[in-house]
Amino acid sequence: MGGIAIGQAGGPTAVINMSVAGFLDHQLSSRPIYGVINGYEGLVNGNMVLLQGEVLSKVQRRRDLPGASLGAGRFALDDEKIEKAIKNLMKNNITSLVFIGGNGTMAALNRISKMASKMNYPLQTIGIPKTVDNDLDETDHAPGFGSAAKYVAHATRDISCDLKAMSNFEQVRIIETMGRNAGWLAMSSGYLKKYEEDGPHLIYVPEKPIYAEKFIYDLKNIVHEYGTATIVVSEGASILGQEQVEQAEVKGRKVLGGISSTLKDLATEHLGCFARSENLGMCQRSFSLAVSLRDRKEAYELGKKAVEYINDGKTDVMLSIFRETGFPYSVFYSTVSLEKVAEKAERLLPVKFIENTGEFYEWLSPLISEGQNWKNPYLEHAF
Amino acid sequence: MGGIAIGQAGGPTAVINMSVAGFLDHQLSSRPIYGVINGYEGLVNGNMVLLQGEVLSKVQRRRDLPGASLGAGRFALDDEKIEKAIKNLMKNNITSLVFIGGNGTMAALNRISKMASKMNYPLQTIGIPKTVDNDLDETDHAPGFGSAAKYVAHATRDISCDLKAMSNFEQVRIIETMGRNAGWLAMSSGYLKKYEEDGPHLIYVPEKPIYAEKFIYDLKNIVHEYGTATIVVSEGASILGQEQVEQAEVKGRKVLGGISSTLKDLATEHLGCFARSENLGMCQRSFSLAVSLRDRKEAYELGKKAVEYINDGKTDVMLSIFRETGFPYSVFYSTVSLEKVAEKAERLLPVKFIENTGEFYEWLSPLISEGQNWKNPYLEHAF
Repeated sequence: MGGIAIGQAGGPTAVINMSVAGFLDHQLSSRPIYGVINGYEGLVNGNMVLLQGEVLSKVQRRRDLPGASLGAGRFALDDEKIEKAIKNLMKNNITSLVFIGGNGTMAALNRISKMASKMNYPLQTIGIPKTVDNDLDETDHAPGFGSAAKYVAHATRDISCDLKAMSNFEQVRIIETMGRNAGWLAMSSGYLKKYEEDGPHLIYVPEKPIYAEKFIYDLKNIVHEYGTATIVVSEGASILGQEQVEQAEVKGRKVLGGISSTLKDLATEHLGCFARSENLGMCQRSFSLAVSLRDRKEAYELGKKAVEYINDGKTDVMLSIFRETGFPYSVFYSTVSLEKVAEKAERLLPVKFIENTGEFYEWLSPLISEGQNWKNPYLEHAF
Repeated sequence: MGGIAIGQAGGPTAVINMSVAGFLDHQLSSRPIYGVINGYEGLVNGNMVLLQGEVLSKVQRRRDLPGASLGAGRFALDDEKIEKAIKNLMKNNITSLVFIGGNGTMAALNRISKMASKMNYPLQTIGIPKTVDNDLDETDHAPGFGSAAKYVAHATRDISCDLKAMSNFEQVRIIETMGRNAGWLAMSSGYLKKYEEDGPHLIYVPEKPIYAEKFIYDLKNIVHEYGTATIVVSEGASILGQEQVEQAEVKGRKVLGGISSTLKDLATEHLGCFARSENLGMCQRSFSLAVSLRDRKEAYELGKKAVEYINDGKTDVMLSIFRETGFPYSVFYSTVSLEKVAEKAERLLPVKFIENTGEFYEWLSPLISEGQNWKNPYLEHAF
C-alpha cells in the first residue's frame, strides 16, 4: 500500500484545520502521510511534504487557528496539469488522496480520479466538505458554515444595537456578507433578532433581485418607524437588471463585493441621511472567537471519518453530514458520490427558507447555538 | 435631596451598558433615578425617563448587549442649549448628573457644571470614562478599549492566518482600525503576533506620518520574503503631506475612514498583485463575542463607584482607573478633576509604546487576556 496525501483548497474557514487534526489524530497505519502544500497547486508542482517530526508538530499546533495550515488557495486545473499531478502522486507512491474543500475542490478531485483511472493508476479519492457559503450540495451543511453564520448573526445584532444608540448621528447601515451566489450566510444575519424594531430590518439574498424603488420605499418606512435601519445584503445579490458588483477579477475568478456601497449611495441620495456600508470581510470565515463548538467538532469528526473510509477502501466519494433530527440535534456521517457532487451546481437557499425564515432559523439553530451544554456568555449576569 | 440622572454619550462600546448596570444595581437611596435619552440631546430637550418598572427592566435586560441602552449619539452644545438643559434638570428637581463618555462628553459635563454654578443651581456632576479609542487622559485606560483591542488583535491575527493560506490568489491585505487621532487600537493589532512571518507586518498610527515610498519599498520586501503582507493602518493615519482621509462630515464632525483603500491602491499599482482593504468597522466597538471580561468588570465597577461618590458628595470629577501593578494586575479607582480632563486634548499613544511595542503589549496584556483564570478557548485541545 502506498502513501496517503491530504490537502486543503479554496478559501479557508475558521475550522478547516480541525479536519486535518481529526485526520492526523486517527491515522494509525504505517502508510506514509503527505501534506499537499497550497492545494492543487502543490499537487501539480509536486510540493508535498511528509507529515512527521517538526512539520507534523507545526501543522498540529495550528489546529485551532483559522486559515489553512497546509496552505490552500485557488489554482485552475486542466488535463495537462492533472496528468502532471498524477505523475507526482505516482512518483511518491501516493495511492490515497484526501482533499478538503467546496464545490470547485470536489469537481477537481472527481476529474483527478477519472484521469487516474484513464492512466491506470489505482488512486483512492476522498473529499471532506468545507465551505462558509454552505453552497455545497449533497450534505446537510458543511463545516465552516456554522462558525461563519455565528459571526454574521452576532455582528449584525451587535452593529444594529450600536446603530440604535446613534440615531441622532447616523440612520442607516448596510452590512454586506459573503456567500457568492447563495444566501445562506446573509439570511443567517437575522438569527439573533428578537423584536421587529431590531435589525436586520431587510435581508437581500442573491436568489431574489433587489428592486431599487422598493428598497428606497421600505428604507424610508423603516427609518421613519424605528429611527434607524440595519440592512443586510449578500455580496452576490444584485439590483434587478444590473450585474453583480465585483471588486476585482483575479485569475479569471470574479471577486464579488460592493453592492452594500451601491445601496448606501441610494440611501444617502434618497433619504438625505448619513448612511454607512460595512463589508464584514474576512472575519466571517476566520474570526476565532466566533467559532461554533459544534462546527469545530464536526470538522474534526469528518477528518476522523476520512481515515475510516480510507481503511474501508471507499473511493470517489465526498463525506457528508446527514441530519436525523434538529431537536435534539442528531446527525450521522456517510458518503456521497463525488460525481454527483460535481454535477450539482452551487446549492442555493431553498425557497422554503426564504419564505419562512422561522423554519430556516430553526434549522440553523443547532449549528450556531451548539446544544444544551453551551452557555451563551453575554447572557450571563455574573455581576 | 433631588433626583439623580444618568446618561450615555458619544459612540457606544461593547460594555458601556455594564456601567449603567453597576450604577443601578447599587443605587439603594430613595432618590428618584432618571435615564437621559440619547445623551445630551435628551438633556436639552427634556427627554428623561424615570428608571423604574418596565423601563428599568428593559435597561437592565440590555446590560450584556452592545450599544447604549439609554441611547447615546452626538449632539453639539452651546451656552443656550446648556441653559436649557439645566432648566430641565431644575424642573425635574435633579441635583446629581452622571454621564458616561469620552473626551467630548467630559468637556461638555464640565461646561454644564460651570453654567449650573453661574445659575446658582446646586448640581453634582460625575463622569464615568468610556472610549474604544483610549484617547481619554487622566486614567490608565477607559472601559470599552480592552474589548475593542481584543477584537482588533484577534481580527488581525485571524485575517493574517487566512491570507497566508491564500498566497497564490492574493498577497496584500490592508486592515483599517478605529482610533481617531490616537494609535492605541491600531497598535493593539500586533498583540497576538508570534513570529516575524505572521501579520501584522507593518502598523501605521496617526502619531507618525506614512512615507508612501517607504511603504511601497517595505511592502515589496515583505511580500518577497513571506509571500503575503498584512498591514494595519489607523483611520487617523495619513500619508506625509496629505490630509486625513474622511468618508463623510456629519453635523460638523469628520468621520474618518478610507486610508486603507488609499494604501491598497498604492499596493495594486506598485506591486501589481491582488490587494484588499478591510475596514474593521463597527464590530470593533460592539462585537459581543470579543468582550474582555476584565473590561466588562471594570465598566461595571465604575458604575458602582459612581454611586459611592454621589453619596460622598463628590462633584466636578471623572472617575479614573489607576494601575498599581501590571503583573499581577492591580488597580484602584479614584477621581480626577473634570476641569483637568477637559483641558487635556486627545491622549496620543506615547512615544515609548511606539518605539517599544513589547512594552506596550505588556501594558495591554491584562486588558485583553483577563487574568489567570481566563482560558483561551482556541488554545484548548479538546479533541
